[in-house]
Amino acid sequence: MTAAGPGPDAGLLAPVCAGTPVEAAVDDRAWLQAMLDAEAALARAQSTLGTVPPGAAAAITEAARAELFDVRALALAARETANPVVPLVRELTRLVALGDPAAAEYVHRGSTSQDVFDTGAMLVSARVARLLLADLRRTADALYDLAAAHRDTPMAGRTLALHAVPTTFGLKAAGWRDLVLDAADRVAGVLEGGLPVSLGGAAGTLAGYLEYAAIAAAGDAPAGPDRGTSAGLDRGGYLDALNGAFAAETGLARQRTPWHSLRTPVADLAAALAFTTGALGKIAVDVQSMVRTEVDEVAEPAVAGRGRSSAMPHKRNPVLATLIRSAALQVPALAAGLTQCMLAEDERSPGVWHAEWPLLRGCLRLAGGAAHTAVELAEGLVVRPDRMRDNLRVTGSQMASERVAAALASGLGRGRAQELLAEASATARHTGRPLAEVLAALPGVAACLDPRVLSVLLDPLGYTGAAGPLVDRALERPAGPA
Amino acid sequence: MTAAGPGPDAGLLAPVCAGTPVEAAVDDRAWLQAMLDAEAALARAQSTLGTVPPGAAAAITEAARAELFDVRALALAARETANPVVPLVRELTRLVALGDPAAAEYVHRGSTSQDVFDTGAMLVSARVARLLLADLRRTADALYDLAAAHRDTPMAGRTLALHAVPTTFGLKAAGWRDLVLDAADRVAGVLEGGLPVSLGGAAGTLAGYLEYAAIAAAGDAPAGPDRGTSAGLDRGGYLDALNGAFAAETGLARQRTPWHSLRTPVADLAAALAFTTGALGKIAVDVQSMVRTEVDEVAEPAVAGRGRSSAMPHKRNPVLATLIRSAALQVPALAAGLTQCMLAEDERSPGVWHAEWPLLRGCLRLAGGAAHTAVELAEGLVVRPDRMRDNLRVTGSQMASERVAAALASGLGRGRAQELLAEASATARHTGRPLAEVLAALPGVAACLDPRVLSVLLDPLGYTGAAGPLVDRALERPAGPA
Amino acid sequence: MTAAGPGPDAGLLAPVCAGTPVEAAVDDRAWLQAMLDAEAALARAQSTLGTVPPGAAAAITEAARAELFDVRALALAARETANPVVPLVRELTRLVALGDPAAAEYVHRGSTSQDVFDTGAMLVSARVARLLLADLRRTADALYDLAAAHRDTPMAGRTLALHAVPTTFGLKAAGWRDLVLDAADRVAGVLEGGLPVSLGGAAGTLAGYLEYAAIAAAGDAPAGPDRGTSAGLDRGGYLDALNGAFAAETGLARQRTPWHSLRTPVADLAAALAFTTGALGKIAVDVQSMVRTEVDEVAEPAVAGRGRSSAMPHKRNPVLATLIRSAALQVPALAAGLTQCMLAEDERSPGVWHAEWPLLRGCLRLAGGAAHTAVELAEGLVVRPDRMRDNLRVTGSQMASERVAAALASGLGRGRAQELLAEASATARHTGRPLAEVLAALPGVAACLDPRVLSVLLDPLGYTGAAGPLVDRALERPAGPA
Amino acid sequence: MTAAGPGPDAGLLAPVCAGTPVEAAVDDRAWLQAMLDAEAALARAQSTLGTVPPGAAAAITEAARAELFDVRALALAARETANPVVPLVRELTRLVALGDPAAAEYVHRGSTSQDVFDTGAMLVSARVARLLLADLRRTADALYDLAAAHRDTPMAGRTLALHAVPTTFGLKAAGWRDLVLDAADRVAGVLEGGLPVSLGGAAGTLAGYLEYAAIAAAGDAPAGPDRGTSAGLDRGGYLDALNGAFAAETGLARQRTPWHSLRTPVADLAAALAFTTGALGKIAVDVQSMVRTEVDEVAEPAVAGRGRSSAMPHKRNPVLATLIRSAALQVPALAAGLTQCMLAEDERSPGVWHAEWPLLRGCLRLAGGAAHTAVELAEGLVVRPDRMRDNLRVTGSQMASERVAAALASGLGRGRAQELLAEASATARHTGRPLAEVLAALPGVAACLDPRVLSVLLDPLGYTGAAGPLVDRALERPAGPA
Repeated sequence: MTAAGPGPDAGLLAPVCAGTPVEAAVDDRAWLQAMLDAEAALARAQSTLGTVPPGAAAAITEAARAELFDVRALALAARETANPVVPLVRELTRLVALGDPAAAEYVHRGSTSQDVFDTGAMLVSARVARLLLADLRRTADALYDLAAAHRDTPMAGRTLALHAVPTTFGLKAAGWRDLVLDAADRVAGVLEGGLPVSLGGAAGTLAGYLEYAAIAAAGDAPAGPDRGTSAGLDRGGYLDALNGAFAAETGLARQRTPWHSLRTPVADLAAALAFTTGALGKIAVDVQSMVRTEVDEVAEPAVAGRGRSSAMPHKRNPVLATLIRSAALQVPALAAGLTQCMLAEDERSPGVWHAEWPLLRGCLRLAGGAAHTAVELAEGLVVRPDRMRDNLRVTGSQMASERVAAALASGLGRGRAQELLAEASATARHTGRPLAEVLAALPGVAACLDPRVLSVLLDPLGYTGAAGPLVDRALERPAGPA
Repeated sequence: MTAAGPGPDAGLLAPVCAGTPVEAAVDDRAWLQAMLDAEAALARAQSTLGTVPPGAAAAITEAARAELFDVRALALAARETANPVVPLVRELTRLVALGDPAAAEYVHRGSTSQDVFDTGAMLVSARVARLLLADLRRTADALYDLAAAHRDTPMAGRTLALHAVPTTFGLKAAGWRDLVLDAADRVAGVLEGGLPVSLGGAAGTLAGYLEYAAIAAAGDAPAGPDRGTSAGLDRGGYLDALNGAFAAETGLARQRTPWHSLRTPVADLAAALAFTTGALGKIAVDVQSMVRTEVDEVAEPAVAGRGRSSAMPHKRNPVLATLIRSAALQVPALAAGLTQCMLAEDERSPGVWHAEWPLLRGCLRLAGGAAHTAVELAEGLVVRPDRMRDNLRVTGSQMASERVAAALASGLGRGRAQELLAEASATARHTGRPLAEVLAALPGVAACLDPRVLSVLLDPLGYTGAAGPLVDRALERPAGPA
Repeated sequence: MTAAGPGPDAGLLAPVCAGTPVEAAVDDRAWLQAMLDAEAALARAQSTLGTVPPGAAAAITEAARAELFDVRALALAARETANPVVPLVRELTRLVALGDPAAAEYVHRGSTSQDVFDTGAMLVSARVARLLLADLRRTADALYDLAAAHRDTPMAGRTLALHAVPTTFGLKAAGWRDLVLDAADRVAGVLEGGLPVSLGGAAGTLAGYLEYAAIAAAGDAPAGPDRGTSAGLDRGGYLDALNGAFAAETGLARQRTPWHSLRTPVADLAAALAFTTGALGKIAVDVQSMVRTEVDEVAEPAVAGRGRSSAMPHKRNPVLATLIRSAALQVPALAAGLTQCMLAEDERSPGVWHAEWPLLRGCLRLAGGAAHTAVELAEGLVVRPDRMRDNLRVTGSQMASERVAAALASGLGRGRAQELLAEASATARHTGRPLAEVLAALPGVAACLDPRVLSVLLDPLGYTGAAGPLVDRALERPAGPA
Repeated sequence: MTAAGPGPDAGLLAPVCAGTPVEAAVDDRAWLQAMLDAEAALARAQSTLGTVPPGAAAAITEAARAELFDVRALALAARETANPVVPLVRELTRLVALGDPAAAEYVHRGSTSQDVFDTGAMLVSARVARLLLADLRRTADALYDLAAAHRDTPMAGRTLALHAVPTTFGLKAAGWRDLVLDAADRVAGVLEGGLPVSLGGAAGTLAGYLEYAAIAAAGDAPAGPDRGTSAGLDRGGYLDALNGAFAAETGLARQRTPWHSLRTPVADLAAALAFTTGALGKIAVDVQSMVRTEVDEVAEPAVAGRGRSSAMPHKRNPVLATLIRSAALQVPALAAGLTQCMLAEDERSPGVWHAEWPLLRGCLRLAGGAAHTAVELAEGLVVRPDRMRDNLRVTGSQMASERVAAALASGLGRGRAQELLAEASATARHTGRPLAEVLAALPGVAACLDPRVLSVLLDPLGYTGAAGPLVDRALERPAGPA
């Protein structure tokens, strides 16, 4: 970008990612550099096959630096061709020609806009995926510690907004970790499955690439109708070699089949990114539920100046959970847009491919910002076991009524037991008397249950089921590939 | 934005709006200015009510200029509070204090971040809505001309991808215009219904505003427990006055009820913007259908350099339709995200409000870009009546077979007539013989229909039904409010 | 439906609408009847214009009763033509012919599947819209009463999950009502704007309708090439008359332009229905927030057996809010699908139109179920002012700290005042001492504020701002057209 | 379902799945049976662990047959508890008690609604996944044959709606196959990754299950405070055993961690199903593009009565592609709704879980219907190589202009070569003269290219690049796991 002025977006409306590493990894300059990397890698790949002179490939690589380009000018020019690669190629050619006019002939040789754009998009996506994996694993590590530390910290289990039966905070944290590892698995799966280069040429047949290969191969061959056409070329061999060399030069995977309108890589990314923000969003809404003033069981890490309200001096807002949830509410919609773009007609669709670009960047940016924010949330979360205990007592002993129902059922039958409990619960609620006392006074109960047993059964702290062993098992899951 | 460097987005991935007027109307600087406009308008409104000294309001207005702020720094600081208004207020206060320390006390008086952000968002939205209306009306005017000029230009009506019966290009263009006017009506409806200011204070009760009003009103009143509290204030009167004054200073509508978590204005915008790109997208997919090489009935305006392919010298790509469709494929997803954000719990939701920002800007930007692009498409569309006529003949006379079926039905019964036609159509298709000839030779047909009548009936050019009168009626619809 | 067995869906997975009036209004039988109503109304309309004999129209009307049809058989046959109207017409023709073979010739005369389907869909939609309006108005009435009764019932205003400043329950209920009336306005707007009949014929030119009109008009006219063609017909006059007569017979509005692929009515419905569930969903998430065990400020109406858990005898789950929220989470996605379907290429699109059907029915059904459920929730909501008061005291007096900050600001400057309050709040929180006491002990505070004033200022019950007047103003809004 | 009458949905609006196997696999009866299967399997699993007497498990299994239940009555009763499991358990208990009152005590022992519902949902999903895999593989096999047969059938490659360069139909079909196999891989991945049972009990700790296990274990143990509580139970061992036994009885996978609000399995299904319809939808839009009257390169299988229009006797509509596309336009929206539901707060969310049900069924049903329809489309697709050849000549020789540009570039430089070609293309278009002739006449061209070479280069049939080898490589991909 140049004196033409600032770009339209400096991150003001996206605090979830402003200043986080993903932001610079997906901004216009990064995207431009990735497309230039694709051009340079293509030239080098072609040079290993003799289609482009090594010097030309070096000159192209030398010129393929984003800082030499005016991003804004490219953006404006892109309107004329509905994509930014056409002006990029023009400008790259001009820059190469400044130093080496002959090399300029070899820029974008046999290629097409979509090959360059999609290869660039995969480079950007792969970089973001690696950032994501690192942040997801740090988050999972922090959650491991929380789960281990609070394996047996009892708290109210809440279903349909109400206290149900007790659980432990460790089990909740272990569940969060499981989800974060699931997200990491899906991101890693996309990355390992291989984000591919794109090599199709004008309509997916690589014809242009072959044509230039044949021309190069022709050299001083005698003239004739086939001279310099690809008729004599080993097409299969060349395409395999070019595919391999391009993959090697970019660090991406080989493509399987030209994918201009077969959008598996993009759909896979969309799914993995939406899963990721979904997983992090689950943590965020749980934190918000526990941070509520009346509940007050956890707090976000205290950082000077963090979470201040413009109006209320006493508040410390849960800003990290807020930012994460804001991302998690957007990404599924964007990802659905991307999935819809699988319906790309013909060899390349007018508009369907183009709709992908901002949607994909949006998903990458928001997922990256959310993951980076989640690290801070998980590493700094303040847990208040005392408040969890206090809240367990809010309903008297009602949280363990399921347990008493079970115990009574063996004597009275389940139907009668549940009826008795429902009545006793209502009485306890209305009168404020302890449930144990109400129950003990009911005819039929005393015969089945010793009052001492009753009071053991009704202690919510003793009724956390298999929470502990569940934590143990969940934490056996490794954090990722060694 | 300053030397801190370029922002993350210069428009490279969004050619549908790069450089169009909407881009500057919704960029971070515009959004910042709109929030500053809100702060300044609030101070002036409060000054008309005696809560803020006129000089302070003037000083605040003077400092509320986006060019004095570092957008990027605000974006980065916004992470700490999950919104950009907190650092904006801090910086505005500092700037005002430089010139007039006393005035600085009156910045953001009694207010809250969301009042400022939402009022700013409505200012931005109103400006975009006006841009949209202008572009939609220009588009409608161009479509009027196309419809009028081609009222009787016959072309193939196509249903389920196949030729059905003839229609006219005028009717198609008139339908497009109708849809564009529908979009304009919906945008105008939102604008006229009134995009409101936001005035809630910390939790929607305006308490802070009242408090400062009372303090100002107290002046030298005698001390006492109620001194300077809002107890003695005519609260209803003050809120009406502030609402009115703020609306007057911003040019927005009064709010009905504080809407921090009652998101009618945003949901209405989402619906109108998604409708708009849907309407324009319909035109785009129709143009793409007609521009196909084999169909070739329309072409996009020829502009030097426009529509060039990076690989194929002969192509002139339909870039305008491509850009419009790319927007139309994204906006419904973003708009659904916004509608989902109506589920904002409590007086302000942690994350739901924050998710709206990029979604709303995305909708505004894409709709604005699509509308601007549509003007160019509609004004420059090249229509080829000769190609339309040629295509009408592709199926021989089969396009009017419905008509012959009707004519035969009165003699043979509908069932038998449809059967005969289906057979004859199949024969004509397989043998290549004209349908009229095949039909005339069928037993039973000659008895019902004179061969001369048959050939009149089968002429597709004569079977455009009520297309002409439908165009007339559609064009009677005025282009907008007088 | 017949002995062929039950349909695939008896409502098991959609408790939000099972058994509510909307369910029967949109089920397959209702949809079938609506399409039959369209066929019958078309025949009657054509008969008023002399195109169809009155007796035939009567016979068609007589046969057009859903109970005479096998819905399942139609559903299965619809696969062959991608729409259910083709087999419906075949079966209707057969049924009419049983009693009056001549009349059977007049079934579906000049028409096309989409005219019948879309007219039927509008009939169904209009019926649902009226159900919705009734339920939304009942809901609004109940909310009126809640708002009026609790105009001055103080409760904690909550922002970003934390207590902010006080508000009143009346203001919350008045805001809900506002949103419900906004929804009613949007639904009424669609209904009054006029859900139209569909009259296009094979490709939107009404050619088939005109052709049959001409044949009927020809009667005994002398033979000749134009005999019985529509050449001599006043096409504009006939289309206006048919449009008007069809509208009159169905009770729908006239169409503006044939809208087979101009989907304004469907997009408008989608927007209004998504708004409706958004509005109701906002109420649901607020109720869920207040019903939480620790908060316990409202409860759903107690109905015997309602809200029972399969495991926990003590729970009374907020099932109504649960059902409403479940609908509100689905409809925006479905509605976005509908909006996307505006991109229907050509005169009728293969697949885009067809995708609308289940999406539109889903939106209607879920919105109708949610509205019906909301009536019950609003009419029976149990409000607990005592719990609201208790919760206001959870943070000591911190909820009014904004107010003290304002009072101190006039003496100390805003910055210093906010600092003091933040410190005092932190001290109060950590030590458990009352904020008033902590503040009074701070140097500088006593000089500005009399301790008696301080304790008045810090009383949260006294700091509800303009909540009361805001309720008054909101309740002045009429519930809808008389 | 009983005399209460038909259910609300008999498939009338969903021809893509009406009557296909998936419909019966996901209908209410199937869902009910799956939940009953879950109840029975749970009892049997508990009986293998001694918690439930074998006779009781057998009695429960015996009663757990959907035909004994009134689906509609359950659907109606589900409104009272916001889920159908509560009435299902009540009715199952009643039915078991009819034959064996003691066994009735063991129904749903220690369980919770969500365990039963989610286990049932996984059973239904696994069945659909298997149907899908079979249909996707049949589709892939048919596409294999098409690709192999047409490896070298040239046709126009189309990009941005225009002819670009030639390709082969074999490459297009091979690409479709690749996408279908990608879909199969994703569905198989979900299935093999293991759709899990759900075992959480009231709040995810399995406490109820343990309690009943302890009571059963206690038997005649001496009374005392711990008698019959789970204090002495090996909780970890029991949970592992129950998890394993439940998985074995259902045929599902073990769960990792209780997943009431950790929705990995549902999000994975959503992604795989949206991918599947996206893949099939790509085929559908390609078929629609090629089936267009002017293009006419393929046709859907001719089946008597298939594809008839209600108005136009001559049409044979591409109904299969229409149905598939209709599904593909809906599923991404529904799937996004499901992904959004990952944000389920607490141990179970009020409304978020409930929103999943119709969305998941919708995705399953539409994907299943689309896949079944795709088999028929792929197996019966009629390919017209002659029409493909004719269309290749529509633009004269312009489709190979890229190739000539490459050949000229080596002599003239790329810039000049592209300019020449663009000029020549324009001249050829406007004058109707063959491009070879126009080119040959241009100064500079003759010097570079022999006219014979020029005419070879311009033959589109000779310019299919690596299409053949690409087909070979694509077809090497195996159709699925051995």
